Amino acid sequence: MDPERKQSKAADPAGLARFFADCRQQSLALVKGLSDADATVQSMDDASPAKWHLAHTTWFFEEFILGAHAPGYQPHDERFRYLFNSYYEAVGPRHPRPRRGMLTRPTLGEVLAYREHVDAALFPLLQTGLPEAAAQLVELGVHHEQQHQELLLTDLLHLFAQNPLRPAYRPVAAGTPLSAVQRPGWVASDGGIVEVGHAGDGFNFDCETPRHRTLLQPHALSTHLVTNREWCEFIRDGGYTDPRLWLSDGWRTVQAEQWNAPMYWENRDGAWTQMTLAGEQPLAPEAPVCHVSFFEADAYARWAGKRLPTEFEWEAAAASQSVTGNFADSGKFRPQPAADDAQAPLTQLYGDVWEWTASPYIAYPGFRTAPGAVGEYNGKFMNGQFVLRGGSCATPAGHVRATYRNFFYPHQRWQFMGLRLAEDRP
Amino acid sequence: MDPERKQSKAADPAGLARFFADCRQQSLALVKGLSDADATVQSMDDASPAKWHLAHTTWFFEEFILGAHAPGYQPHDERFRYLFNSYYEAVGPRHPRPRRGMLTRPTLGEVLAYREHVDAALFPLLQTGLPEAAAQLVELGVHHEQQHQELLLTDLLHLFAQNPLRPAYRPVAAGTPLSAVQRPGWVASDGGIVEVGHAGDGFNFDCETPRHRTLLQPHALSTHLVTNREWCEFIRDGGYTDPRLWLSDGWRTVQAEQWNAPMYWENRDGAWTQMTLAGEQPLAPEAPVCHVSFFEADAYARWAGKRLPTEFEWEAAAASQSVTGNFADSGKFRPQPAADDAQAPLTQLYGDVWEWTASPYIAYPGFRTAPGAVGEYNGKFMNGQFVLRGGSCATPAGHVRATYRNFFYPHQRWQFMGLRLAEDRP
Amino acid sequence: MDPERKQSKAADPAGLARFFADCRQQSLALVKGLSDADATVQSMDDASPAKWHLAHTTWFFEEFILGAHAPGYQPHDERFRYLFNSYYEAVGPRHPRPRRGMLTRPTLGEVLAYREHVDAALFPLLQTGLPEAAAQLVELGVHHEQQHQELLLTDLLHLFAQNPLRPAYRPVAAGTPLSAVQRPGWVASDGGIVEVGHAGDGFNFDCETPRHRTLLQPHALSTHLVTNREWCEFIRDGGYTDPRLWLSDGWRTVQAEQWNAPMYWENRDGAWTQMTLAGEQPLAPEAPVCHVSFFEADAYARWAGKRLPTEFEWEAAAASQSVTGNFADSGKFRPQPAADDAQAPLTQLYGDVWEWTASPYIAYPGFRTAPGAVGEYNGKFMNGQFVLRGGSCATPAGHVRATYRNFFYPHQRWQFMGLRLAEDRP
Amino acid sequence: MDPERKQSKAADPAGLARFFADCRQQSLALVKGLSDADATVQSMDDASPAKWHLAHTTWFFEEFILGAHAPGYQPHDERFRYLFNSYYEAVGPRHPRPRRGMLTRPTLGEVLAYREHVDAALFPLLQTGLPEAAAQLVELGVHHEQQHQELLLTDLLHLFAQNPLRPAYRPVAAGTPLSAVQRPGWVASDGGIVEVGHAGDGFNFDCETPRHRTLLQPHALSTHLVTNREWCEFIRDGGYTDPRLWLSDGWRTVQAEQWNAPMYWENRDGAWTQMTLAGEQPLAPEAPVCHVSFFEADAYARWAGKRLPTEFEWEAAAASQSVTGNFADSGKFRPQPAADDAQAPLTQLYGDVWEWTASPYIAYPGFRTAPGAVGEYNGKFMNGQFVLRGGSCATPAGHVRATYRNFFYPHQRWQFMGLRLAEDRP
Repeated sequence: MDPERKQSKAADPAGLARFFADCRQQSLALVKGLSDADATVQSMDDASPAKWHLAHTTWFFEEFILGAHAPGYQPHDERFRYLFNSYYEAVGPRHPRPRRGMLTRPTLGEVLAYREHVDAALFPLLQTGLPEAAAQLVELGVHHEQQHQELLLTDLLHLFAQNPLRPAYRPVAAGTPLSAVQRPGWVASDGGIVEVGHAGDGFNFDCETPRHRTLLQPHALSTHLVTNREWCEFIRDGGYTDPRLWLSDGWRTVQAEQWNAPMYWENRDGAWTQMTLAGEQPLAPEAPVCHVSFFEADAYARWAGKRLPTEFEWEAAAASQSVTGNFADSGKFRPQPAADDAQAPLTQLYGDVWEWTASPYIAYPGFRTAPGAVGEYNGKFMNGQFVLRGGSCATPAGHVRATYRNFFYPHQRWQFMGLRLAEDRP
Repeated sequence: MDPERKQSKAADPAGLARFFADCRQQSLALVKGLSDADATVQSMDDASPAKWHLAHTTWFFEEFILGAHAPGYQPHDERFRYLFNSYYEAVGPRHPRPRRGMLTRPTLGEVLAYREHVDAALFPLLQTGLPEAAAQLVELGVHHEQQHQELLLTDLLHLFAQNPLRPAYRPVAAGTPLSAVQRPGWVASDGGIVEVGHAGDGFNFDCETPRHRTLLQPHALSTHLVTNREWCEFIRDGGYTDPRLWLSDGWRTVQAEQWNAPMYWENRDGAWTQMTLAGEQPLAPEAPVCHVSFFEADAYARWAGKRLPTEFEWEAAAASQSVTGNFADSGKFRPQPAADDAQAPLTQLYGDVWEWTASPYIAYPGFRTAPGAVGEYNGKFMNGQFVLRGGSCATPAGHVRATYRNFFYPHQRWQFMGLRLAEDRP
Repeated sequence: MDPERKQSKAADPAGLARFFADCRQQSLALVKGLSDADATVQSMDDASPAKWHLAHTTWFFEEFILGAHAPGYQPHDERFRYLFNSYYEAVGPRHPRPRRGMLTRPTLGEVLAYREHVDAALFPLLQTGLPEAAAQLVELGVHHEQQHQELLLTDLLHLFAQNPLRPAYRPVAAGTPLSAVQRPGWVASDGGIVEVGHAGDGFNFDCETPRHRTLLQPHALSTHLVTNREWCEFIRDGGYTDPRLWLSDGWRTVQAEQWNAPMYWENRDGAWTQMTLAGEQPLAPEAPVCHVSFFEADAYARWAGKRLPTEFEWEAAAASQSVTGNFADSGKFRPQPAADDAQAPLTQLYGDVWEWTASPYIAYPGFRTAPGAVGEYNGKFMNGQFVLRGGSCATPAGHVRATYRNFFYPHQRWQFMGLRLAEDRP
Repeated sequence: MDPERKQSKAADPAGLARFFADCRQQSLALVKGLSDADATVQSMDDASPAKWHLAHTTWFFEEFILGAHAPGYQPHDERFRYLFNSYYEAVGPRHPRPRRGMLTRPTLGEVLAYREHVDAALFPLLQTGLPEAAAQLVELGVHHEQQHQELLLTDLLHLFAQNPLRPAYRPVAAGTPLSAVQRPGWVASDGGIVEVGHAGDGFNFDCETPRHRTLLQPHALSTHLVTNREWCEFIRDGGYTDPRLWLSDGWRTVQAEQWNAPMYWENRDGAWTQMTLAGEQPLAPEAPVCHVSFFEADAYARWAGKRLPTEFEWEAAAASQSVTGNFADSGKFRPQPAADDAQAPLTQLYGDVWEWTASPYIAYPGFRTAPGAVGEYNGKFMNGQFVLRGGSCATPAGHVRATYRNFFYPHQRWQFMGLRLAEDRP
């Protein structure tokens, strides 16, 4: 499958309706088994309650589609406009982000009813066909909801990790393969001018455009992700105690937060465990290291005598590989060791863990935001963050592509984040 | 009923068992209608989730009674010892107070099961009779749970007040009497040496003892509590904008918190409303002002050319009045206007609102804490707080008495707190 | 000398002029040897620069005397009214307290010129005689400046203690007597009604009035202050690691601030040193412990099985002792061991270290603040602080008396603060 | 003058000695007229005291040259190694940055003596000639001191701006030309592959290397800097109140800091003034806007329908212009209006104000830090900051060049920072 060839669903009413329905259904599947309280509590400012994710993604359709394109539509509850706007200044004032966890009402049940109300109003429109601009907003809304599906999982993991009881969201995935010690190699490139960024009919976020030419230096990428076993080596070698390995802001964070291992690792009588969506589990040595910040990834690369890839080195390599991997639909919700018989040049390029790159998240040459509130989707976050590529075990299958840019601040690590090394070539 | 004559229930096994059972039942009645999320979220560091109150009061019995006096007792869950200890250093480490709201598990249902487990183990012991020291601890545990019943209500009000939807916990109480404008008078006292503090057989907290002699100055107490109508006068007269009326720390708080009215007041197009346990309601002008801090009460008294009573002026007057009033059992959960035909010299002395006094909360002469963890109950809080007297509309009936000392920091105002004025007499 | 008999200087023009001149001169003597920078930097929010103390005490005379009583007086610099007001809301806005250290201009030299300007305007008025109310304000201004002389020293010690070079303000005092181990005894009292507070003609601050009757319980006071040697015992016995000895707020402070000894103590290879105004010096075992907070004093007393005295127990005992001791005029600026041949019943009652009492700083019965800005002098600080009595080695001689009330928050310890134990008697 | 042709002074002992001596002398000239206190106080964490700059630049020579290359050299004061290390982890622990203002000792005079001591030891070595590596470190040390000369000025301006007296560091520069309204034009470029970064013999910082090829898009640069007059237009048009113009982090900063104009602007009765090193002065409408953050520069560009240049667009244009402009040696210490008869294509490219670029400060392809402590010079700051180019009115003449990269966080604005607009070309 060539992701650049994929056609936008906005031009295909039946396809869009199915895409919408599947996604909405998938969100419900994700909250199955959660208690009302599980879905309500906010465990840190960066995270949001599951209930809020369910409501906000619904608000998106109500605000941007139904308000404009459904004549006579009655909002489910006027006050939800205030409660469930995330960050759209153009839409109006909104409930402060750090206070999302105060909303015990509406209950989870009431939010599910809100979803039904909006779905019931939107679905007929989808079936009869919407104007193109509206259809494109619906398609955006579905991709938006997919993003929140991933956040719902990572935020839930964070919440459960605050609980000394270490609850499990799902049972341990059966059949996780034991893995031999991995033997990474290198895939080299001569560099030169390449085209990057999105073009063509398929869906994309605005920050993936415009497609443009960029100049790569000669380099090589590791065939494998860095593993937990390798990370243990870094820890043993004093990685978290040697300031020379760290960016200055990173070292300050290490000291302020007393980091001595990736997030969710705990040392129980000398053995590492890791909090996962299946509760606290023994560390899997050959699985990719996960829940490391950019600061940690960067320090590790320096320790290893290597560096992180740029986002365009990654993209150039990824363009020719198919988008397959351990995504959320596997139900494993945990990075897996690379298969011993991986065929692609770069193993685990997609899925398992988002890969930190050395590239700050900034605008592409000629980038323009869309007019209106939707223009706030990506553009206003273009400072201080770094790009990650490739998706994770919590990303919905079909959501990512070679040009897809995720981004987080360098100290953040509650997402499923890992790294692949790169090196300069003469 | 003379509270000083009341006999301790510890000496009466059947009475103690009934007292225990009623109280445990009452806690369940209070959480009726709460969702799992309502019972889980913590809205500020000072507040605790309803679920936590239910569990902590249960832990008290498990830790202090069953652990020592029930041979072969198996803890319901070993980990609850860590989760539900409040502040007893002698018991061991505990879940940090500001993180109580992270505990979506155990669920409300599981906490109710924990309560049943402990009740089932304790009730037979109560019926057959416990050693006196243990019986006294049970009695303490019941009074302790009553205190948490009040906190459960005030914490829930705080939580619901954070929600723009302004949920109601209970419907508006029927039959709230309209009230004529109140006409306060004064009840004078020549002062002199009086005995204060608790003595006799009835239950008491340690901080109410020893009974001792103290010297009162000549003074008078207002027959009435300060009302909302009077408080509006204070606001209109610039009470919240004139630094000369305020203690220095109080003025700093006014500015930092931007106080311009009691907590939970909101100005809607020129008219005040108040968030209550029945949701947001119009202000009742003749009801006692409520949710004011010591700083506000003190500034009001200065503005009025009066002062707050000392705790012993209050206690000396209260000793001869019966302990009746608008307590939680009325189901009104809101301070009521004084009855026009009140008979007692000091109206609303008990119930409705806790009355701030001018007295810092310190030890009585000769005060000794009990040995062991229970000694941490009150003694370690004796700095920086002020004494309040008389109970409120959220206090369980029968819980307070003339010698009862409640205490909070001067900036706190989420309890049902108000004031009665006093003045010096020559 | 009976402090209660001392006549107010306000009634004696020549005496007042001399009193004023001596005090003004004494302030200059204190800053001798300080660099412009030493006099300018503010080392914490609670402290003020020496230059600010010099200017603010001058502002007091300019604002309250010259402005009202010197016809045609031209302010030295209009802007100083804003810069050097401390906390008088009635006077108007003022430079924020935590920003006092930003004022590198006016320089120390310019502030000294400001002092000369004000002195030159005020001195003639003093010699010809001022109206009584104004004369009383001058007298208040001198006592006010004496208070700031002490603060100037304690703030300077704090500043120098932040400097790894540990500068010395003055050389080590010669002739510090070696001292035998002290043998404290007890002075008992039957209690009963006593009169406390200030009366008579002598100067006093408003918070020392009205003189009134209070009831003491039977008790005893230690003849000696707690010494450094005794405090080392407390440390060795785990005093700073046992939460059961501490008030709850105190224990939180111990943990947050990582206290393990009095302020300014440092452990150098197993031996304690103490930062003093003569630089870092070996600890003097028989000298009174100093720079301990109320929290520490209270914990020590609990550890010792005793308690702190009330302020009135102290005052009743002090009323019959003469006000002599190690004050600032000794030039030692450091608490000294008690003389082996001390004659007074309570040794070191005055001078050396302020003695923490168990009494919260609140208003005496019938207390009224003065009208106008001067009314802000003391009254607005009456919450959350505890009373200290007796003066210290940094207090100007003649400044304190039996009724004198000093007050600080329970966590503060940068003043010369220590303690004397008390106990209940049957 | 072609900066790429400039020869490193490390290869020319006499030249290096002269370069060193001139720079050391220049630092002394900068602190002439400062009081000891002016040179000691630290006005914010980001700023350092003048005295500290004088000492730290001296420490650099002592630590990196004298320690290794002057046999038998005795440190002036062993403790200065701790006091005046800035951020070199490899050298050892150091006095915490936010505490630099606590050091009233050593005095300014003592620091000047420290400088003399080090100069006296180093100068003979320079005259006789040092090994090449050491000579290169001396050259680095001089450039390092030049950087601190600029910081000394910007930090002093910040300090004086905290003082309500608004002191002047230097008199107003005579002869500031009145200026006609400026008429900016555009200088276009077709883009394509260019070489950027430093090469050749001249001095450079490590972050300017390696020289490498990069791909420019077609674009144009404004001939002029944005002026104060234009910025007033932005303010009048609601620039500081429209969230759609701002990056999300920028908008949060605007609200938290209540920004409504550039730093140091004050509105006096409707007219803007600006705090400068000559005290508070009327705003000069045609002078370049100064003391704006990246967030503000970026919002302005968006408002204007343009964008900021990339650092390589700037460098490519700058490579062919001579390095002349309003630098610190003019003694004006304030950005000046562009001359009406400017000859260069891009006016005020060098000097006046640092120009914010759209480029995050990251490593060039193949960048390697030097081994040892000096490797901490630049590399560890490569996240979260943006590149500025061109130098300012506080930059020593001769210090900058076309490849020179300065960098600050996007919220910082106390440096002399402004902007030039760019636009895309088809």
